[in-house]
Amino acid sequence: MTRPVYFDCDTGVDDSMALAYLLASPEIELVGIGGVHGNVSAAQGVQNTLRLLALAERTDVPVAVGENDPLVGQFAGGAPHVHGANGIGDIELPETTATAIDEDAADLLLRLSHEHDGTLEIIAVGPLTNLALALERDAELASRVTQVTVMGGAALVPGNITPLAEANIAHDPEAAQAVVTASWPVTLVPLDTTLANVIDETERERLCAAEAPIVRAVGAALDYYFDFYVAEYGRRCSALHDPLAAAIAVGGMLPRVAPAVPVEVDVTDGPGRGQTVCDLRGQRLGPVDRDGANVRVVLETEGTLAPHMVERLLSLTAPSLEANGA
Amino acid sequence: MTRPVYFDCDTGVDDSMALAYLLASPEIELVGIGGVHGNVSAAQGVQNTLRLLALAERTDVPVAVGENDPLVGQFAGGAPHVHGANGIGDIELPETTATAIDEDAADLLLRLSHEHDGTLEIIAVGPLTNLALALERDAELASRVTQVTVMGGAALVPGNITPLAEANIAHDPEAAQAVVTASWPVTLVPLDTTLANVIDETERERLCAAEAPIVRAVGAALDYYFDFYVAEYGRRCSALHDPLAAAIAVGGMLPRVAPAVPVEVDVTDGPGRGQTVCDLRGQRLGPVDRDGANVRVVLETEGTLAPHMVERLLSLTAPSLEANGA
Repeated sequence: MTRPVYFDCDTGVDDSMALAYLLASPEIELVGIGGVHGNVSAAQGVQNTLRLLALAERTDVPVAVGENDPLVGQFAGGAPHVHGANGIGDIELPETTATAIDEDAADLLLRLSHEHDGTLEIIAVGPLTNLALALERDAELASRVTQVTVMGGAALVPGNITPLAEANIAHDPEAAQAVVTASWPVTLVPLDTTLANVIDETERERLCAAEAPIVRAVGAALDYYFDFYVAEYGRRCSALHDPLAAAIAVGGMLPRVAPAVPVEVDVTDGPGRGQTVCDLRGQRLGPVDRDGANVRVVLETEGTLAPHMVERLLSLTAPSLEANGA
Repeated sequence: MTRPVYFDCDTGVDDSMALAYLLASPEIELVGIGGVHGNVSAAQGVQNTLRLLALAERTDVPVAVGENDPLVGQFAGGAPHVHGANGIGDIELPETTATAIDEDAADLLLRLSHEHDGTLEIIAVGPLTNLALALERDAELASRVTQVTVMGGAALVPGNITPLAEANIAHDPEAAQAVVTASWPVTLVPLDTTLANVIDETERERLCAAEAPIVRAVGAALDYYFDFYVAEYGRRCSALHDPLAAAIAVGGMLPRVAPAVPVEVDVTDGPGRGQTVCDLRGQRLGPVDRDGANVRVVLETEGTLAPHMVERLLSLTAPSLEANGA
């Protein structure tokens, strides 16, 4: 039996990779997708998601537009210098007649949590506004969800949009604080591990030569994304932020060092705003789970993601060819 | 020509080691010592300092009592579980008739900065209240001091009294913020490096067998301190916090990775209070000094301190024996 997954994203180059990875994962079934502000506006992200699903002939997956502003303040304009103006490296995806559903993302999540009560899993790779809003509408949501995997935060490495804060968390610290303090098990996949997992040009070229159009699109979108990371890594490659969270959630990648520790989000207006405050004291002799902590912080993984991810993406076939051949 | 050094401390087991190290360092001359709240009360710390100086027959060095409370709030009682009730591992040092001078520590520092205008160096291994107070009394102080070396903070490792904050900084964040933002060159020696430099039982036993009484006292005081660190390291040993700052300031230890980067101290009342916010983004390819940054953060050292420190401490002779032999 495949596990039902709600995927919350701000599609985004690396969100696109994560989406393709999830579509290629037999362990899980995508039962719904919510869009949120972040790399792009919520509307643009949803449009990207719909077009990617259409490329994969998976418009059966319901997609809902979510919040375009954080709980406090408003959408700051995204990260066009990282993801391109359209969020997917300024490649042009074919238009689709598929549209978002009428529910907003928080309501979709709440409905799915009833339909899959006790089995639903959440993978969130954007700001956590939709999840926080769903909790606000119904705090019992937490008891119906079996696991929440979040790409976000920075524990023992610098942040990426402030000295201390990672973008997903910093774009809505109040929402993140609600999510990490709710009574559900959270797995946090922070920059500590995502920056240690990169995809390089050789692997990107394999994606560009893939059979499945969605994988070729992801490979093409990475071209723009690689430019941004030259300053970080000194070569053309990119971090695998969102796909790493997806792979850890699915079980395709295993955490190696991932203690459950007290975590809170800095919601002050000081220099720490948006920081994920993980209490990692006392871990020198090896990972130690702290009593009562329900947030697991992934500091190291077994192996690296890129080879596994590329292999899994290349397993996707071209749906139209299949249909033609049938 | 030896370089004049003002030493600010909260004596403390590791402060005692740092003091002995400085007394054994031919490169510098201790021209004054200020006491501050921290490991113990300012008065207790000064008493410890005076007795240690008496053991070394160096009561010629003026010692001033400094602030017993941080700029905001008040002295919280010190760290008897780490340093013992008397601050020096509950060993009993011989009483001394030496007393503190009449000036307070901030005034001593200001006077010395005039007497050694353009050559004075500061080594601060406690909360930075005395330094901040001196800057408050005369902001021009910064221009008369050539370097300030501070043991404090945590950049890319957990704190030691909160998840994010190190004790010296957390005991007076407002003072630390004044010191790291003043226009003098600061070298910050944080937990990142001090916890990586330990002294173990074999080396402690060499100190206990030393000729100089102050070194034997330091070795004895370490016994209590080692107990505290068993939980951290899984064996009897201790971090060399304050001596590492002293050795880096003197030049006995060289920084290997120590970029000059923007640093501020979190002075909010949030979970980051007392954190040293070091902007360490963009350092993946190697240390990069950032324009205009005047705080150097020591992340790695060349070699480890203990062998060098033990050798230097053992070079101290027993002053009374010398006097008798003369």
